[in-house]
Amino acid sequence: MKVKVVTKILEANERIAIQNRRLFDDAGIFVINLMSGPGAGKTTVLEKTLRLASGLRIGVIEGDIAGSDDAERIERCGAPVVQINTGGACHLDANMIFEVLGELPLHDLDLLFIENVGNLVCPAEFKVGENIKVMVLSIAEGHDKPLKYPLMFQESSALILNKIDLAPYLDVDMEKIRRDALSLNPELKIFEVSCKTEAGLPEWMDWLKEKTLKR
Amino acid sequence: MKVKVVTKILEANERIAIQNRRLFDDAGIFVINLMSGPGAGKTTVLEKTLRLASGLRIGVIEGDIAGSDDAERIERCGAPVVQINTGGACHLDANMIFEVLGELPLHDLDLLFIENVGNLVCPAEFKVGENIKVMVLSIAEGHDKPLKYPLMFQESSALILNKIDLAPYLDVDMEKIRRDALSLNPELKIFEVSCKTEAGLPEWMDWLKEKTLKR
Repeated sequence: MKVKVVTKILEANERIAIQNRRLFDDAGIFVINLMSGPGAGKTTVLEKTLRLASGLRIGVIEGDIAGSDDAERIERCGAPVVQINTGGACHLDANMIFEVLGELPLHDLDLLFIENVGNLVCPAEFKVGENIKVMVLSIAEGHDKPLKYPLMFQESSALILNKIDLAPYLDVDMEKIRRDALSLNPELKIFEVSCKTEAGLPEWMDWLKEKTLKR
Repeated sequence: MKVKVVTKILEANERIAIQNRRLFDDAGIFVINLMSGPGAGKTTVLEKTLRLASGLRIGVIEGDIAGSDDAERIERCGAPVVQINTGGACHLDANMIFEVLGELPLHDLDLLFIENVGNLVCPAEFKVGENIKVMVLSIAEGHDKPLKYPLMFQESSALILNKIDLAPYLDVDMEKIRRDALSLNPELKIFEVSCKTEAGLPEWMDWLKEKTLKR
């Protein structure tokens, strides 16, 4: 008699993530898993990115528990987009991404954003086949977030500190956010951004283009 | 040969939640599971509540992935408090609560707040033995949250719409939040609150006292 230990869920996810990554590589596409808590401004960052990204062909996969608001917003920017509704699941997994890849013109894209479910915890634990992870934090969420939600800061290549136009109306210590985030991840690239005033967006766009084109 | 189907995780959690609830009932204590996304202001609402709650004896269990900042803030208000660090887990479950109940003077309390991990998704799925759930939403998170994260709005008895002092600086449609939240849960009691100006806190305190004392 042979006894086989059941493969762990994370391993199954990892296997499909590798498969997705191979498909992305074959299509010559750079993939970013975009994560944040609810309402930090991921979709607004994407809208701005799509409007400013001259020369980059960008597609988007939208992940939400329910609804298609975000996909409609992306569609209005003229980008190819697929909406995933996870039902109850609090994060995207590699299998969900694999299921929708046929809906996107991968070979005609340079860059694919996978906008995860708004959740500062679980999305950081599940690879979906991305090249890098980028996170958004609204400064209205407060300066205690890096130390309370360390994994996402550790896993991300860049942090978009969003809604900095609100700084005068908040008791938020931006320097503490920077310091704690960098203590968790010294390689983290930090952009201070306002999608309202467009401050910081040129720096983000330069970095994004360089990452996409030199991959 | 008898084959037994493995009890589902949710059922195990439910069983322990019922046990917690019995302990709370025996102690004559009213219990609120306080939930929100990251940085909506749960701890600040608790600080204000502790300062304004004359006549109510309140204890707090703090849930975070990591760190003890929140418990320290509660302790400075003079309330008995226990910090749970979940490690990686994105929500509190009934077993975590059961484990720390011995640390609190339950019989000397009227009201226990269980401040969940900042997450707008999973905490709504796991009972911890509470009488009711209350959620906090920062208006800086935007007006699309009820339809994107329906379960928490459906499960909560009250919604604290927090940080309304920021309204002049945001493009947020408060009426849409109200309308969508009530369409999901017509019984939902909504408080518009600013912990900065203390607007709305008297109404919240009146409701809280009534709920606690008439239980």
